[in-house]
Amino acid sequence: MTAAVLSTGTELTRGELVNTNATWLADALTTLGFDVTELATVGDDTAAIRRTLERLGHEHAVIVCTGGLGPTTDDLTSAVVAELLGVPLERDQASLETIRARLARIGRGVVAESNAKQADFPRGATILANDWGTAPGFAVRLGRALAFFLPGVPSEMSAMFHARVAPLVEPLERTRRHQIRLRTYGLPESEVNDRLTGLETRHGVTLGYRASLPEIEVKVLAPGATAEEAARRARAAADEVRATLGDTVVYGEGDVTYAGALVALLRERGQTLALAESCTGGLAAELVTRVPGSSQAFLGGVVAYANTVKARLLGVDPALLAAHGAVSAEVAVAMAEGTRSALGATFGLSFTGIAGPDGGSAEKPVGLVHFALAAPTVTKTVQRVFPGARDQVRRRAVYLGLSLVRRALVDGG
Amino acid sequence: MTAAVLSTGTELTRGELVNTNATWLADALTTLGFDVTELATVGDDTAAIRRTLERLGHEHAVIVCTGGLGPTTDDLTSAVVAELLGVPLERDQASLETIRARLARIGRGVVAESNAKQADFPRGATILANDWGTAPGFAVRLGRALAFFLPGVPSEMSAMFHARVAPLVEPLERTRRHQIRLRTYGLPESEVNDRLTGLETRHGVTLGYRASLPEIEVKVLAPGATAEEAARRARAAADEVRATLGDTVVYGEGDVTYAGALVALLRERGQTLALAESCTGGLAAELVTRVPGSSQAFLGGVVAYANTVKARLLGVDPALLAAHGAVSAEVAVAMAEGTRSALGATFGLSFTGIAGPDGGSAEKPVGLVHFALAAPTVTKTVQRVFPGARDQVRRRAVYLGLSLVRRALVDGG
Repeated sequence: MTAAVLSTGTELTRGELVNTNATWLADALTTLGFDVTELATVGDDTAAIRRTLERLGHEHAVIVCTGGLGPTTDDLTSAVVAELLGVPLERDQASLETIRARLARIGRGVVAESNAKQADFPRGATILANDWGTAPGFAVRLGRALAFFLPGVPSEMSAMFHARVAPLVEPLERTRRHQIRLRTYGLPESEVNDRLTGLETRHGVTLGYRASLPEIEVKVLAPGATAEEAARRARAAADEVRATLGDTVVYGEGDVTYAGALVALLRERGQTLALAESCTGGLAAELVTRVPGSSQAFLGGVVAYANTVKARLLGVDPALLAAHGAVSAEVAVAMAEGTRSALGATFGLSFTGIAGPDGGSAEKPVGLVHFALAAPTVTKTVQRVFPGARDQVRRRAVYLGLSLVRRALVDGG
Repeated sequence: MTAAVLSTGTELTRGELVNTNATWLADALTTLGFDVTELATVGDDTAAIRRTLERLGHEHAVIVCTGGLGPTTDDLTSAVVAELLGVPLERDQASLETIRARLARIGRGVVAESNAKQADFPRGATILANDWGTAPGFAVRLGRALAFFLPGVPSEMSAMFHARVAPLVEPLERTRRHQIRLRTYGLPESEVNDRLTGLETRHGVTLGYRASLPEIEVKVLAPGATAEEAARRARAAADEVRATLGDTVVYGEGDVTYAGALVALLRERGQTLALAESCTGGLAAELVTRVPGSSQAFLGGVVAYANTVKARLLGVDPALLAAHGAVSAEVAVAMAEGTRSALGATFGLSFTGIAGPDGGSAEKPVGLVHFALAAPTVTKTVQRVFPGARDQVRRRAVYLGLSLVRRALVDGG
């Protein structure tokens, strides 16, 4: 059962906006069990939309189309579909009432014709109510395809797909699928791949890898005759992935972040973290505080960019800075112990290095970072040279630093 | 002159990867003066690639295709194009030598057949050398279109487009275009739009708006009979945009960031900044230190998430915290003055607020943020309630805070 996605909008064909909707829909349709074979994008142009819909209607069982349902003159979708089907547009009174009520709530008493037009649908269409925005969607049969038309606003599009489209395609005969996304950090993609060799065949699943520096997401996609069978198969395969890669590497499933998993671990144990960042410049603190509820486990930190700050706020001895330089294991230790004691935290974690592009030397190249983790009984140091540009060095460094805390919590260091 | 972009790859049609290549190419082709009317994406499937290329070859003057030039078995593009043209694949010895030399440099002495196949092209194709990776590209005439085939790796794709594709399409007759991107912060999109009413007609240009919370990018696209005329027209229109919106709002052009423009201003004047962040959790420091060379102007900061940190590192009087609460103008002032004096900076900027989702009250709702800017002679305070989720509140707050410094530098506050 093949499916296609059609995105309309001149902002897309001019390259003004990245088409994340199409990717989201392709993933959602694939997970539901369809083989998505084409993603098409055309501008706000009647002839192009019409020609493309006609073609896709011949080739696919399901089409999901986004965009062109707004109030402006370049919102053309309903009219094009009506023309293609050879039926008139008809105004739906129930939809008009909903639009009127919605506009009244935001203080607009009169429904302009441009908004009223959003209640016009091809005669015979199934109207898809939009509880998340103004423009309702609709569904029609086009050629051999069941075609769905959704608004282009991403939050409305995704909510309507789950609530309105998924139930309508549910009866279609197809292989059922279940997907589990495992979040990993700590192994390169090639090694994750190698360690999981043979798992696809053993479990009858497909593994997908998505690298998002420096993480690797492992996507387990399992087919089944029923949804339950697909879910069971996905779970068994995901459990083997977890067992093979280990809990230090697989830090969670779904939408959890690396920092989020760390905050959860710290909260579970009633422990706290303090940071001292030089080259990472606040990125570690930012990723940790992005987690709602992080204040239960994260006390704060110092962004010690200038050496005077390392001395004044963290109590790093200026003689140490003079003797070893700011980028050294000795200074990393003083920073970690300094922030741990100043903030009264269980763990003090420090970063000092050279993110580039300038400031490197033969002895201390760009990408060199020293880390220290001050724990209650011991302070541990690590040093690494990271490849890549400034942003990549900073990002890789933050993950490595946070992984020292994770290891200390998961397997005692 | 219409153009189309074709992206191939099952990772795209399955929704595993957002197609940023297509957007990049659409923007680049639009800027070169082509009307891009379709972006097509199909999986690694011979029949689908062939059918789509055949169709696009009838409809367009230029096609740019990415993907399918790699060494693996699902890299099919050269073979499909040869079949479509009815010509054999031929191995290009010069390309093979380049691939051999490249692999030797990374320590691989023998060229595997999978890599050698990357030197196979349809007979008669113009080979496009790849100085940025392994797989060369090629160009052929397909129907009425000039069709270019590039690797899918984004950095190789963009480098090859500029160096190999742009010169070959240069002679094609078309309207010339020039684009200037103006970066703005401080006005809502609707107001930017309203203030620029009439400018398009007066200058004969197109304005595009791209919101990237909380910034608005204004893209000026100017046509001309020659490249020079297009550039002159774009410059005149961009200058009027700058004059209309003002220098506080228009902070730069092209790829500069808001923090980057601020760092440049501070460096010009030999002034320095210190931060004290509570609810923003290091995001302000992170954006500032992302700028190469920021250490010349940014001394550091304190992420004072817990109240004890505000007291211990910034010298905020615990009595003040008890009397007014951490989220108050009084504490914001103490934090800003505390970080300015502890770090010895020209400016001390503080943020204290409630980013949510929890922690709000009737008196102090989620989204409330107090700011203070401690300058050499005066400390200024501002308070705002920002809409949106946690991430949006934090991002809006950081920009507003940095804008206080920008205003102090640009127009004396």
